[in-house]
Amino acid sequence: MTDHDKDLAADTLDLLRKVSVATLCTQLFKRGLRNVFIQGIGRLTDPAAGNMVGPAYTMRNIPAREDLDQISAFDDYDHPQRKGIESVPPGHVLVLDCRGETRVASGGQILTTRLKVRGAAGLVSDGPVRDSGAISQMDFPVYCAGGSAPLNLIHHHAIDLNVPIGCGGVAVYPGDIMVGDDEGVAVIPRHLADEVARDAAEQEKMEAFILERIEGGAMLRNNYPPNAETRAAFAQWRKQRGI
Amino acid sequence: MTDHDKDLAADTLDLLRKVSVATLCTQLFKRGLRNVFIQGIGRLTDPAAGNMVGPAYTMRNIPAREDLDQISAFDDYDHPQRKGIESVPPGHVLVLDCRGETRVASGGQILTTRLKVRGAAGLVSDGPVRDSGAISQMDFPVYCAGGSAPLNLIHHHAIDLNVPIGCGGVAVYPGDIMVGDDEGVAVIPRHLADEVARDAAEQEKMEAFILERIEGGAMLRNNYPPNAETRAAFAQWRKQRGI
Amino acid sequence: MTDHDKDLAADTLDLLRKVSVATLCTQLFKRGLRNVFIQGIGRLTDPAAGNMVGPAYTMRNIPAREDLDQISAFDDYDHPQRKGIESVPPGHVLVLDCRGETRVASGGQILTTRLKVRGAAGLVSDGPVRDSGAISQMDFPVYCAGGSAPLNLIHHHAIDLNVPIGCGGVAVYPGDIMVGDDEGVAVIPRHLADEVARDAAEQEKMEAFILERIEGGAMLRNNYPPNAETRAAFAQWRKQRGI
Amino acid sequence: MTDHDKDLAADTLDLLRKVSVATLCTQLFKRGLRNVFIQGIGRLTDPAAGNMVGPAYTMRNIPAREDLDQISAFDDYDHPQRKGIESVPPGHVLVLDCRGETRVASGGQILTTRLKVRGAAGLVSDGPVRDSGAISQMDFPVYCAGGSAPLNLIHHHAIDLNVPIGCGGVAVYPGDIMVGDDEGVAVIPRHLADEVARDAAEQEKMEAFILERIEGGAMLRNNYPPNAETRAAFAQWRKQRGI
Amino acid sequence: MTDHDKDLAADTLDLLRKVSVATLCTQLFKRGLRNVFIQGIGRLTDPAAGNMVGPAYTMRNIPAREDLDQISAFDDYDHPQRKGIESVPPGHVLVLDCRGETRVASGGQILTTRLKVRGAAGLVSDGPVRDSGAISQMDFPVYCAGGSAPLNLIHHHAIDLNVPIGCGGVAVYPGDIMVGDDEGVAVIPRHLADEVARDAAEQEKMEAFILERIEGGAMLRNNYPPNAETRAAFAQWRKQRGI
Amino acid sequence: MTDHDKDLAADTLDLLRKVSVATLCTQLFKRGLRNVFIQGIGRLTDPAAGNMVGPAYTMRNIPAREDLDQISAFDDYDHPQRKGIESVPPGHVLVLDCRGETRVASGGQILTTRLKVRGAAGLVSDGPVRDSGAISQMDFPVYCAGGSAPLNLIHHHAIDLNVPIGCGGVAVYPGDIMVGDDEGVAVIPRHLADEVARDAAEQEKMEAFILERIEGGAMLRNNYPPNAETRAAFAQWRKQRGI
Repeated sequence: MTDHDKDLAADTLDLLRKVSVATLCTQLFKRGLRNVFIQGIGRLTDPAAGNMVGPAYTMRNIPAREDLDQISAFDDYDHPQRKGIESVPPGHVLVLDCRGETRVASGGQILTTRLKVRGAAGLVSDGPVRDSGAISQMDFPVYCAGGSAPLNLIHHHAIDLNVPIGCGGVAVYPGDIMVGDDEGVAVIPRHLADEVARDAAEQEKMEAFILERIEGGAMLRNNYPPNAETRAAFAQWRKQRGI
Repeated sequence: MTDHDKDLAADTLDLLRKVSVATLCTQLFKRGLRNVFIQGIGRLTDPAAGNMVGPAYTMRNIPAREDLDQISAFDDYDHPQRKGIESVPPGHVLVLDCRGETRVASGGQILTTRLKVRGAAGLVSDGPVRDSGAISQMDFPVYCAGGSAPLNLIHHHAIDLNVPIGCGGVAVYPGDIMVGDDEGVAVIPRHLADEVARDAAEQEKMEAFILERIEGGAMLRNNYPPNAETRAAFAQWRKQRGI
Repeated sequence: MTDHDKDLAADTLDLLRKVSVATLCTQLFKRGLRNVFIQGIGRLTDPAAGNMVGPAYTMRNIPAREDLDQISAFDDYDHPQRKGIESVPPGHVLVLDCRGETRVASGGQILTTRLKVRGAAGLVSDGPVRDSGAISQMDFPVYCAGGSAPLNLIHHHAIDLNVPIGCGGVAVYPGDIMVGDDEGVAVIPRHLADEVARDAAEQEKMEAFILERIEGGAMLRNNYPPNAETRAAFAQWRKQRGI
Repeated sequence: MTDHDKDLAADTLDLLRKVSVATLCTQLFKRGLRNVFIQGIGRLTDPAAGNMVGPAYTMRNIPAREDLDQISAFDDYDHPQRKGIESVPPGHVLVLDCRGETRVASGGQILTTRLKVRGAAGLVSDGPVRDSGAISQMDFPVYCAGGSAPLNLIHHHAIDLNVPIGCGGVAVYPGDIMVGDDEGVAVIPRHLADEVARDAAEQEKMEAFILERIEGGAMLRNNYPPNAETRAAFAQWRKQRGI
Repeated sequence: MTDHDKDLAADTLDLLRKVSVATLCTQLFKRGLRNVFIQGIGRLTDPAAGNMVGPAYTMRNIPAREDLDQISAFDDYDHPQRKGIESVPPGHVLVLDCRGETRVASGGQILTTRLKVRGAAGLVSDGPVRDSGAISQMDFPVYCAGGSAPLNLIHHHAIDLNVPIGCGGVAVYPGDIMVGDDEGVAVIPRHLADEVARDAAEQEKMEAFILERIEGGAMLRNNYPPNAETRAAFAQWRKQRGI
Repeated sequence: MTDHDKDLAADTLDLLRKVSVATLCTQLFKRGLRNVFIQGIGRLTDPAAGNMVGPAYTMRNIPAREDLDQISAFDDYDHPQRKGIESVPPGHVLVLDCRGETRVASGGQILTTRLKVRGAAGLVSDGPVRDSGAISQMDFPVYCAGGSAPLNLIHHHAIDLNVPIGCGGVAVYPGDIMVGDDEGVAVIPRHLADEVARDAAEQEKMEAFILERIEGGAMLRNNYPPNAETRAAFAQWRKQRGI
């Protein structure tokens, strides 16, 4: 369906660390993809490293059932939720399909700490987390639907690891590149990551130049989007800055 | 997780054909299960055979992605949606996880006709169907979120067959017994089907007796629920009718 | 707060049986009341007697709590839900505050039958009912949010009888006059019932006359609303018909 | 922006009278248009003439304001709502932008009657209508969000006629071709109407043939979508029937 | 409909800069206006100048259509979205009707910067903005439904400038006075702005006095609202402070 | 129904001041209570004292009616909203049932100040407050659905004090123990408060130990939940710390 092992260009992840999710959405829109931004969630933490970037590793939840989803479910250390945390490859982002359920948490501080210690690149859930106050202080990218104290077992049953899922209304295939900034998270289909990263970096240089002009009093006309003259001025500007 | 091959008692499916989904919900509530009724859907057709009854065979959809979900996707006859229709075992109910998406159809008349011809026991989706006018005239149980003309590819990508899913907010495991009447659909965990069927049949006899009394002017007190005296009268009533 | 014992004019209830709820909403709007139509519900039955009309008798539900709201709760014949059914005065409408909860039923066939036998004027709930197929065949006015099989105890705890409540977003004070037609239910503050009934009946005569004209090809201009000339023609028309 | 005076081919409207809205959605999807089905509404009436077909004539509502939107507003016969009714060209469909507001009506029986008498092709609103019982008996296509008794002035202020609007989440430009069947309403951009009508008619012939096969026991494989062999058989089938 | 050129009293805008939006809502409620607070949005920035105050200049969006709303749409410098930014009169507030659509942005940093440079008094949208992190640092009043990275073209087509619109469920007529504080935005019909400003300023003096009393241990009785004695004490308090 | 005068153990309230609401939800889940966390609200203030803890004192609102709910309603100092504020016993939490209505405020700064001066333990509402900027600076626990400027009378009519209510979808009986931390508010049925407080305190010691281990690199397996060995190590750890 989608090639989740496709090699990425050497600089793709680095480029993605420096561009905004808004720019990525524009690049994906230019390629006909309109539904790539995970809806209904925000960034809970303020990680030092800037953008969250990494391939998706997924976990799927279905609705809980009272006879199966008792507290004793966790006595099994191979419970998919626990196993998921322990199997995310370093550098990957754990993405949870919580069906947009906001009434209960998808996980809490201990699991998030374990994720971080294991070297995961971040956590994305379309549900809330619990212990959200403590988690908000962690130097680790966490994107979720805020905080909620009730535990996951009340409405979730973790069932599958690393299958294609929906998260916040967006398709996430294992290996897709997840990028998060302070505004939210975009899902880049893996086969597009190289070209999108490259074009996004170019677009942002151009927009930095345009923003300077607008701040200096220029009109939108001829500048945004740039006409031939503005493009020429931009080329000059780049040359001067060596970028 | 749940034993979807467990044998059922010989009369279980027959008993389930004659009781109401409301009664089944009460029996499951007595066993601690509060979330067994598929929310947000209704019966579209008026099948001659009465209740829909059969084990669940499931199909899971995730959100569509424009580069994957073009009309040409169906050129592959092994597309999961098509394969799902062709692989439902006779007597089983096809249950679709459409994430409650009401903007597009889960399927239409040709697929539903094929399902019926193949001997499926019914179709349950938490999304709408298209060709809903034609389907509503079929003698085949269809439960869904009404009619909607846009095709599934706009928002759905069929991805998995016969895995545990959520449908209308309820967990559905393959092999669970789906029962539908004119009010909606309950999901009975397979391991409970025998006892729930038996107790539901008993409950309905009792309630038929109580309803007669209430129609005749009796008060709720002592009758609903029945006290010892009413229970004795009921025993008598049963004996007279040989039921 | 509101005088729920105020006597009504002798013909008020009869007048209300013959006007539409739409007309009543217009009359109440003219008096500054914009929020009198119970939202989110419809008529389930098709009673022979036409409009449902009667003073409100209310029942209030709060969210259920698992330790209190077990099936054994009904062993107490004085459970407020049961007591409510048994205490609605004849000719009154039982109005349930279910907080717009659509996931579970507010009641079922046995309780509705008892209501009818006791001479209640109807049932209004902003939640669904169970046994909705059977109830839909009753010759008794039932307005609700459709059918839903799970029993009330899953989400409701009946707590109060005949206190002011909200139902479908509208304030209902005991003694307010409930009127239901095939479109839905309006709540008329008791102190306005006489004048609203009288003016609504007049408005409908006028509109019957205007509709005749429009069906005959007349323009809206001068006719809807009527100018002086049209009013004169209407006066003539009434005289001819003796109405 | 869009050419709302573009001439249509002579047979376009006739072709559109005979195809389903589902088929039109498929044809528009093939052309990259995914959002053409008006969401949240249904057909209220059962017109003898089958599909509603006609160019859009629009009316835009904004939220009401209590000082402007009193009952006296209608004393002005040039009130946009009234003027809109009187200015829809014969054969056109009046399309109302009610912002999906379901709490109040967009109009009632007198206005709908006037629309019909004037020769309009139908009424489409993303809000409800009042007098819905009487309107449901009219031989005139009305698509809306059901019935609601409160009058429009409570939440609507009619402001513009025949400007581009949104209706049920879909863009409607004056002159776009509105097509409604028993499932709902599609909006066909005027410049695509000819080719969509033609291709939809062809698609339905093919699907009638396929449905026959499926009813006769054929598998989806090779038939739906048709492979070369099936297409050849279809060509034969058409020739025999002269269609 | 409403006189958007009506001159304002000399001190009206200054008075409005110092009162809270809550007080304005109370004053408008006293005049029968209940729906004046834009729902579903908040203040994104923390402008040095305090309250945003200025007449409304509006932009209307309808749903996007894929064939019209491609990235190339912006090649036209007269695209309504761009033209809107360039035509807001200095001191005016740009108010966007985004139909409450939260899935995509209404605009971003470059456009907001241009608005600020041009001397606009602020930006109000019932949709989100993109580049929300950068915008949140601007010294410029921006009220919106948070941040969202996808660009407007995915769901919006800008269509009209300076027509009456709905924003967050409230009617906004060009020239209405928009006032925003840290809690949100009220829309004051232009013809009421003078008296509302004056009375709001008076109300706040009174409430400052009452709050002092309550902080000092006074009961609500006799103080809130003030009885004759409290009003007399307030008159004294004002005299002492010369306000 | 529930014993709201039951004495609490001497240390219960103190224990509850130090545990998280997440832990309380887990303890209540272990006892079969799944719906104890008030949905849709958050903490507005940052009180120095940490957790809000106190018995519930309730106020119930129904929908407003224009003829009753004018500004003059407050001239009656015994208006239930005002009386409620003046009658909350010191140390109790005022809990408002606002039916989750987010369009208008439940109260503002003067009332909240009075509550604080009177020694209330906090305010919980499932609606917003007005003057939210000023209130957010108070050293007093306030939990609500954010800020909203319109006054309560627009949609609320305060009707009852200290009756069982729903708040944020949860049953609150007078005397139930309300506990709020930075994540939200749990409702502990009074009869369970002692045991839940004690067990929650124990659970948090255990989890502090486990978190230390996880931060140190331990796997979830054997540690979370703890196996016998980990429990033994924990016993040791406690002894060393004397806790």
